Amino acid sequence: MKLDAQWIIGFVDGEGCFYVGINPHKEMTAEYQVLPEFTVVQHKRDVQILHALKEYFGCGVVRTNHGDRISYRVRSIDHLNKHIVPFFVKYQLKTKKRHDFEKFKIIMEVIRAGDHLKTDGIEQIRKLASQMNRGS
Amino acid sequence: MKLDAQWIIGFVDGEGCFYVGINPHKEMTAEYQVLPEFTVVQHKRDVQILHALKEYFGCGVVRTNHGDRISYRVRSIDHLNKHIVPFFVKYQLKTKKRHDFEKFKIIMEVIRAGDHLKTDGIEQIRKLASQMNRGS
Repeated sequence: MKLDAQWIIGFVDGEGCFYVGINPHKEMTAEYQVLPEFTVVQHKRDVQILHALKEYFGCGVVRTNHGDRISYRVRSIDHLNKHIVPFFVKYQLKTKKRHDFEKFKIIMEVIRAGDHLKTDGIEQIRKLASQMNRGS
Repeated sequence: MKLDAQWIIGFVDGEGCFYVGINPHKEMTAEYQVLPEFTVVQHKRDVQILHALKEYFGCGVVRTNHGDRISYRVRSIDHLNKHIVPFFVKYQLKTKKRHDFEKFKIIMEVIRAGDHLKTDGIEQIRKLASQMNRGS
């Protein structure tokens, strides 16, 4: 199955999620680990769509999420920087999910600069992440 | 906001619904009324997307659904036949929702032939409708 960029944007506007986890991690200098991810979850009947997304982006994994739900997920910082972020910069989301992506993109820049290893950077990321996926 | 056909297909693959209600109705010859509809529901923050869909298709209504949810809905048989069905014939859905649409399309043909006013037609529609939106 071959996907079209505009189809992907429409599908992600509906079903996609940009999420940044911030977990306590004693071994990190700033004591927190930042875990950005891009996911699309579907009922297992549409697993072939998730594989088509994986093929389109050339990265990520498809795996069972909960019960009948399957997720396509990209967690690699390198793959997010090289494949996911540039795609959503080139083809803009049309729903308010665009604002989540914009914050995600800034967080990826903070990570690229290495500031996620510093307390100030963690605070900046925490503030941005708290404004994401609030449904308003 | 101007929408692209492929974006709409992707968005409807995620968020759209083809539904056929079959309600008891004493005044109808076959004692049932068939109510097909196409809907897209969103959080109110994205109401402008629903208005853009309405503008694109040139039909339907946008209204509050439940609480923070807003729906774009097309119920007119004439508008479904002229604007909605031809669009999804021309640009095919990529998820299994395509199968729901295919049953919806057959039901619209049964209605167009006037067979929804006959007991046999109602039985055929009931069978097709029962196979829709089952998530499998």
